[in-house]
Amino acid sequence: MQVDSVIHARWIIPVEPENTVHEHFSLVIDAGLIIDLLPTLQARQRYQGDIEHTLTDHALIPGFVNTHTHAAMTLLRGIADDLPLMDWLENHIWPLEKKWLSADFVKTGTDLAIAEMLSSGTTCFNDMYFFPEITAQQAIKHGMRACIGLIIMDFPSAWAENSAHYLQKGLALHDSLQQQPLISTAFAPHAPYTVSDESFKKIAAYAKQLAIPVHIHLHESVQEIQQQQAQTGQSPLQRLAALDLLNSRCVAVHMTQLSAAEIALVAQTGVQIVHCPESNLKLASGFHPLAQCLAAGINVALGTDGAASNDDLDMLGEMRTAALLAKGVAHDASAVSAMTVLKMATLNGAKALGLEKICGSLEVGKAADVVAIDLDCLYTQPLYHPIAQLVYSASRHQVTDVWVAGKHLLKQRQLLSFDEQQLRAQVKAWQLKLSV
Amino acid sequence: MQVDSVIHARWIIPVEPENTVHEHFSLVIDAGLIIDLLPTLQARQRYQGDIEHTLTDHALIPGFVNTHTHAAMTLLRGIADDLPLMDWLENHIWPLEKKWLSADFVKTGTDLAIAEMLSSGTTCFNDMYFFPEITAQQAIKHGMRACIGLIIMDFPSAWAENSAHYLQKGLALHDSLQQQPLISTAFAPHAPYTVSDESFKKIAAYAKQLAIPVHIHLHESVQEIQQQQAQTGQSPLQRLAALDLLNSRCVAVHMTQLSAAEIALVAQTGVQIVHCPESNLKLASGFHPLAQCLAAGINVALGTDGAASNDDLDMLGEMRTAALLAKGVAHDASAVSAMTVLKMATLNGAKALGLEKICGSLEVGKAADVVAIDLDCLYTQPLYHPIAQLVYSASRHQVTDVWVAGKHLLKQRQLLSFDEQQLRAQVKAWQLKLSV
Repeated sequence: MQVDSVIHARWIIPVEPENTVHEHFSLVIDAGLIIDLLPTLQARQRYQGDIEHTLTDHALIPGFVNTHTHAAMTLLRGIADDLPLMDWLENHIWPLEKKWLSADFVKTGTDLAIAEMLSSGTTCFNDMYFFPEITAQQAIKHGMRACIGLIIMDFPSAWAENSAHYLQKGLALHDSLQQQPLISTAFAPHAPYTVSDESFKKIAAYAKQLAIPVHIHLHESVQEIQQQQAQTGQSPLQRLAALDLLNSRCVAVHMTQLSAAEIALVAQTGVQIVHCPESNLKLASGFHPLAQCLAAGINVALGTDGAASNDDLDMLGEMRTAALLAKGVAHDASAVSAMTVLKMATLNGAKALGLEKICGSLEVGKAADVVAIDLDCLYTQPLYHPIAQLVYSASRHQVTDVWVAGKHLLKQRQLLSFDEQQLRAQVKAWQLKLSV
Repeated sequence: MQVDSVIHARWIIPVEPENTVHEHFSLVIDAGLIIDLLPTLQARQRYQGDIEHTLTDHALIPGFVNTHTHAAMTLLRGIADDLPLMDWLENHIWPLEKKWLSADFVKTGTDLAIAEMLSSGTTCFNDMYFFPEITAQQAIKHGMRACIGLIIMDFPSAWAENSAHYLQKGLALHDSLQQQPLISTAFAPHAPYTVSDESFKKIAAYAKQLAIPVHIHLHESVQEIQQQQAQTGQSPLQRLAALDLLNSRCVAVHMTQLSAAEIALVAQTGVQIVHCPESNLKLASGFHPLAQCLAAGINVALGTDGAASNDDLDMLGEMRTAALLAKGVAHDASAVSAMTVLKMATLNGAKALGLEKICGSLEVGKAADVVAIDLDCLYTQPLYHPIAQLVYSASRHQVTDVWVAGKHLLKQRQLLSFDEQQLRAQVKAWQLKLSV
């Protein structure tokens, strides 16, 4: 049978079913979809690809779903570090955003983020930032899958004047993106302390009607809980519960401050959690109780957060940090296995975004969002267990090839949908401006 | 003036003085030593190198000092993960070592470790393992600086029968290495729970006489403290104090369990600490109170531990984890800056090993242990502050060149002192044996 392409790999780790490593297997792609997954010997008999790739030392995995990003903030990577949280925000990040935020800032920053994400094996990102129409436009341009956050807050920005204006622009953007195969949307109310009850009520109603997620920073820090308790008499979770926002459409990011009762509430309401371990550490936000949340049956996905607080968009590194930190926090070296974090970084992210029928695992009928990682590097030798080696030893430079919906976007470490020299020049120009 | 070599770099980060970034600077090397450090414009007038390197997008830093390794254990990388500590040790690591430990195991494992360390910018390692004469031999062969641990424990191994035998072999090895310019030695009593008072007393006396460090796992886990309290009525620190081992020659690794009084004792006695954050997380050993120890004036160095519990020997990654984790543990985003961890990974390590006059910073008169890191990678763009970018964004694949004592060992990412194909074949052979 003639098909678009066949990738013959040393290993295929489909994520679903769990703990499966197929050796000498092939992935068959046609019209952007995975149409078969079978031993290479059989694949060579049954299929003829217009293009065939033979990756003798590589593992194929589903592309990573980076479930919490502020892509454009890569332009602020490393501009201010090692500062107390409020000093960092109030005296560095916010003034810079106030002065420089623009469509062009978002365009260049998003391009840099997409280049970094594709190079390191991420095929889908869930973004929250201003000028989301630019983020969508650049994702479409570069062929990357994205869930575009329709940002809402009660404060003005260069993008919108007030919450009604944010909502109006967001709804218009949602409509305009309906025909884009790689793009979905989510409401993205910034956080409990920046969004009013009135806005939350509208978001709850629209999210139900449009059946899209609500992506929000939640229970990120002690200060947030204290401020909300003082101002509303409720914890943020209690407040969102009263506003009818705690359900499986809710994508709650960070969640470092959680009592046992709150974990039970989250599990019971089906709220999705996005864990961002490196950002939580860097901003000293607290420790997310990952092992407990997983034990409670909560779907926990993984995100890097923006590069201003990480300072990378590297999901391989984030998986490693998540697994290591969870063991430390749980005082249990057997907590949160390599397979668990790999699933968090792929299928759980897709599930959080309502995309689990489209991506997140290498299964027949899903989109061919595929990443090849070379495990023959000295850093991953000897190789006893590919999944463990992927999580605990591999690094992003071992990612060699990436496909999104069957389209080859990274080929032997070269980005195919970028003019890298032009991107570098644009980033340098912004660096000069922002350094002033 | 004619010299051996001159390296012209975009940036030089000498570590001493702190927080210094020289731009368009050159490092002048003759007879293995740094003889000058000056602006490139002046360097081109004053010096003529037999070899000149121009690294237009690179930062030069002192080579990393990995202050706690079990180099040969790279052969066990990824063989057993996500297990409770005692299950991991008793049912996996120790039986494998019992069955397979040999001079050849140590030779191949050490070679793989040295290849990984040089590739990722480490120029000196402080090792503790069996067959230390083989570790020394391979370090000498590949031109790497090392502090070789004269391992001592009360249990037999393939290397020695009892503590007296370990000590005797260690002393003989110490003598035989006296003329090796890149090699120093340390006593390496394994841990409080594997070494008797009698052995510790001998080690204390010999260490004083020979003026070499005593490298030991200490206060690594709650279990260790409890076991020692039950068995000796003392904490391990109290016991070592009574045995006259708490002084500036003591290199205490891990130290996750420390009261305020114990931190004060460590500071007062001048004991050196080696922090291994990733191993502590992976084995769920507890959180080292890094910010508190630094505030107390303790010299804290950085180590990866063995690749069986990390699972890499990547000091760039370890710096990043150390800085991030310290902020989380201290609940303070301003705790432990990028500069602080860079110093921990270089000069503090040299100081812990008594090598601070020889290496650990780029200063005139010190050995030319130098690493070049390419910061033009998209992952480290934009670039506002080279030190922050190095710690929070750069990764080991950006290391391009490494010199030890002026000898070029990694050149444009190629290992010059290795037959890499042969090494890979040896590692694969061991993988097959160990997989049985």
